[in-house]
Amino acid sequence: MVTRKEDFSKWYLQTIQQADLMDYAPVRGCIIFKPDGFEIWEHIQEEFNRRFKEEGIRNAYFPMLIPESFFNKEKDHIEGFSPELPWVTEAAGEKLEERLALRPTSETMIGDAMSRWVQSYRDLPMEINQWANVFRWEKRTLPFLRTSEFLWQEGHTAHATAEEAVKRTMRSLQIYKEVVEDLLAIPVFSGEKTPSERFAGAERTYSIEAMMQDGKAVQAGTSHFMGTKFAEAFDIRYLNPDNEHVYAYTTSFGASTRLIGAMIMTHGDDQGLVLPPRVAATQVVLIPVGPWQKNPAIMEKITEIYNELKGLDIRATIDDSENSPGYKFNEWELRGVPFRIEVGPRDLKNEQVMVKARDLDDKVAVPFAEITDYIQNEMQVMQSRLLERARKMNQAQIYTDIETLDDLQAHIEAKQAAGENPGWVLAGWDGTEESEAKIKELTGFTTRNIPFEGTVEAKTTCIVTGKPATATVWLARAY
Amino acid sequence: MVTRKEDFSKWYLQTIQQADLMDYAPVRGCIIFKPDGFEIWEHIQEEFNRRFKEEGIRNAYFPMLIPESFFNKEKDHIEGFSPELPWVTEAAGEKLEERLALRPTSETMIGDAMSRWVQSYRDLPMEINQWANVFRWEKRTLPFLRTSEFLWQEGHTAHATAEEAVKRTMRSLQIYKEVVEDLLAIPVFSGEKTPSERFAGAERTYSIEAMMQDGKAVQAGTSHFMGTKFAEAFDIRYLNPDNEHVYAYTTSFGASTRLIGAMIMTHGDDQGLVLPPRVAATQVVLIPVGPWQKNPAIMEKITEIYNELKGLDIRATIDDSENSPGYKFNEWELRGVPFRIEVGPRDLKNEQVMVKARDLDDKVAVPFAEITDYIQNEMQVMQSRLLERARKMNQAQIYTDIETLDDLQAHIEAKQAAGENPGWVLAGWDGTEESEAKIKELTGFTTRNIPFEGTVEAKTTCIVTGKPATATVWLARAY
Repeated sequence: MVTRKEDFSKWYLQTIQQADLMDYAPVRGCIIFKPDGFEIWEHIQEEFNRRFKEEGIRNAYFPMLIPESFFNKEKDHIEGFSPELPWVTEAAGEKLEERLALRPTSETMIGDAMSRWVQSYRDLPMEINQWANVFRWEKRTLPFLRTSEFLWQEGHTAHATAEEAVKRTMRSLQIYKEVVEDLLAIPVFSGEKTPSERFAGAERTYSIEAMMQDGKAVQAGTSHFMGTKFAEAFDIRYLNPDNEHVYAYTTSFGASTRLIGAMIMTHGDDQGLVLPPRVAATQVVLIPVGPWQKNPAIMEKITEIYNELKGLDIRATIDDSENSPGYKFNEWELRGVPFRIEVGPRDLKNEQVMVKARDLDDKVAVPFAEITDYIQNEMQVMQSRLLERARKMNQAQIYTDIETLDDLQAHIEAKQAAGENPGWVLAGWDGTEESEAKIKELTGFTTRNIPFEGTVEAKTTCIVTGKPATATVWLARAY
Repeated sequence: MVTRKEDFSKWYLQTIQQADLMDYAPVRGCIIFKPDGFEIWEHIQEEFNRRFKEEGIRNAYFPMLIPESFFNKEKDHIEGFSPELPWVTEAAGEKLEERLALRPTSETMIGDAMSRWVQSYRDLPMEINQWANVFRWEKRTLPFLRTSEFLWQEGHTAHATAEEAVKRTMRSLQIYKEVVEDLLAIPVFSGEKTPSERFAGAERTYSIEAMMQDGKAVQAGTSHFMGTKFAEAFDIRYLNPDNEHVYAYTTSFGASTRLIGAMIMTHGDDQGLVLPPRVAATQVVLIPVGPWQKNPAIMEKITEIYNELKGLDIRATIDDSENSPGYKFNEWELRGVPFRIEVGPRDLKNEQVMVKARDLDDKVAVPFAEITDYIQNEMQVMQSRLLERARKMNQAQIYTDIETLDDLQAHIEAKQAAGENPGWVLAGWDGTEESEAKIKELTGFTTRNIPFEGTVEAKTTCIVTGKPATATVWLARAY
């Protein structure tokens, strides 16, 4: 195994394959989500469904194929997405009259539906979510983080007023932050995207951004306020209480299977995957050690603990294969299983088991009588510990005292020379696209987002031009 | 509203739209699953996931786009599916070197993956399920029952022996029968498909078939034993304990969103939808009656009951809109909500509520103290009652004493003249495709399946040729 320090990209690709999360597929840029990988997604889905349904957002399903004419209704939207669209041009042996795009996102299809469904102010707010496969034929692909086909949820809402739509936009962003931090233990940075990084067709785009161990950023979820742009393009109008026909305000928000990649790059170590307990397909593995085949009491004890854990809805498994304990330890560490419980002859005598947490170095002896309570409690402790560890890692990779582009370039060179990564830089920005372009051209850094007021100390001058800053931005290289 | 008797097809299309289950989409043969329709599917998914996971079948996700060359590997498979495939021929502004089909089913993609994943007998059985959108560009479409894009689960398994694969095939069919009967209250007829009706590439295909109120059949789930045909086409071989490289035996099984259509056509009545409680998005609606706006105690009582029901995880809602009670009663009956609870001034005085079950004519007075127990219990009673009622409807539409094609034609004519439907006919069959073709040509009836031995009395002569029957088959018109 290559280490993260030696080659982070290679480490990532090795880890996800050896941990059996995915396989490459015979279609350009597509991957197969194997059961251990897909189950992480299922836990993410459960949590989002619970949170969305709590606030009245219901699931629906819209057709995947989108007529070309739909895209042409919102000009920014088609400009943004057309370079990446795959097209169906033939079906059942005949050429189609109109090309059909494989959806890259569903604003157009859902906008068209909402134009029929939204008639009166009584129909608002209309809040819908969809779980779907989407397609973006991008040049560079990377398993989980950027694939030609990926899975996501896309929320789409329509509101009577701009205020309500903005509130939904911010609330969706907050749900993303809470789910990603609480469930995946990935700390995120919330803020607004700069105009050049907005979703194609949005008036405002907000994101949560996560920092990987190599200092690069992953955009982990976005929430968009559309104003009335899509309502105008698709004629989503309603009769207000004054009997006037007015446009609705719409929003959309999406989070995808790239969260799986972000989680792996946040927590993994040189032994392989490290899974936060809440999303691990297997939370506890029980392994007999010593001459256990000759001592049936060992497997009896293991089965007893296994049944108790199962009774508490803890996802446990027993590894009673013929492999050596050492082999098994490696194998389950590689797969990121949060807890390993070992039981051998000495443990039986001492009425205890040995427990190894995936992210800690030392084993702990736990008495038989306490083991289920211990695991239940330690799962929560580990969940918080991983988040806390990631926060510390983030803090160590944040640079807030770089004031000029020269300094930024020098910083990057110095880090590179030291075999370290340049992390994230908090910088002042004069609000121009030119400055953003220059930063990117000279350093490869892009603006991640503009942190919300009060979350960081504001910068006063632009890192590029030295002019007064109109905003403080996070700069980083990104996946 | 048109009645079922007047025009069953029209009744169906009216019902699903008025009950807000679906909308038409601007793409040929595709529909939008609106929240109330999609939630039925979510309950079906939950139940299948629970059942599959219980026996070790895990979810995964495979790419939707299938290279043309994959289809050509199994000749029966391509012959069966090629007339219905939509093709992606361009992406990101360029013509693709090889056309990519939108999956109609995933045997080929998963067969290719299994050829890499199945190496040793220790890897078997390999049992995987996928929830996915699939595409079949068919000529006639009908919402839920036959759409160009639909949603389904497809199970795919590989086994060391033919016996194990057959066992899985039959077990999957049994799960289908149990879920469809227990959850959707649709009684089904299990059996084997005739060779001409087999899945393209299967050695044996089994189905559960359901009878609609108009006497037509819906194939509600199929389970296929592939033998080694796909293993040979995709080279799924493993090293057995004797160190020989041998082919695995594979199976597949699928059930789709057509189950929603089958459920509606089984239970609906002239007032609209009738939903079995277990899959209803709303199980109980609470409606204040009388001058409730002036009497806050009514809404207080309703809120109290609502909270109690919610506490029991019963999906309840309060309709406190300004519409009249009569309007609300109609509306919620149309939507098929299993129970309506009314509370008015007189009820308060009598310390009771009035309860109306969707499928019964009379209201029942239930004391305040008993209402939650009553609803909990009656939900199960209704679930069984709907299944039982459908069974009786089926029995009344089954004809087992038709021995010749002339008699079948006469039977159909007589029923037509009486404004009734010809139902299902149990017939002897000589096992030839010619006889099947003749039945279809002259009557429009097709073979549904061959019931398992012992489930019906065996026929001795073929309904077409009078020759000795090799099997007894269900004949019916089908969706």
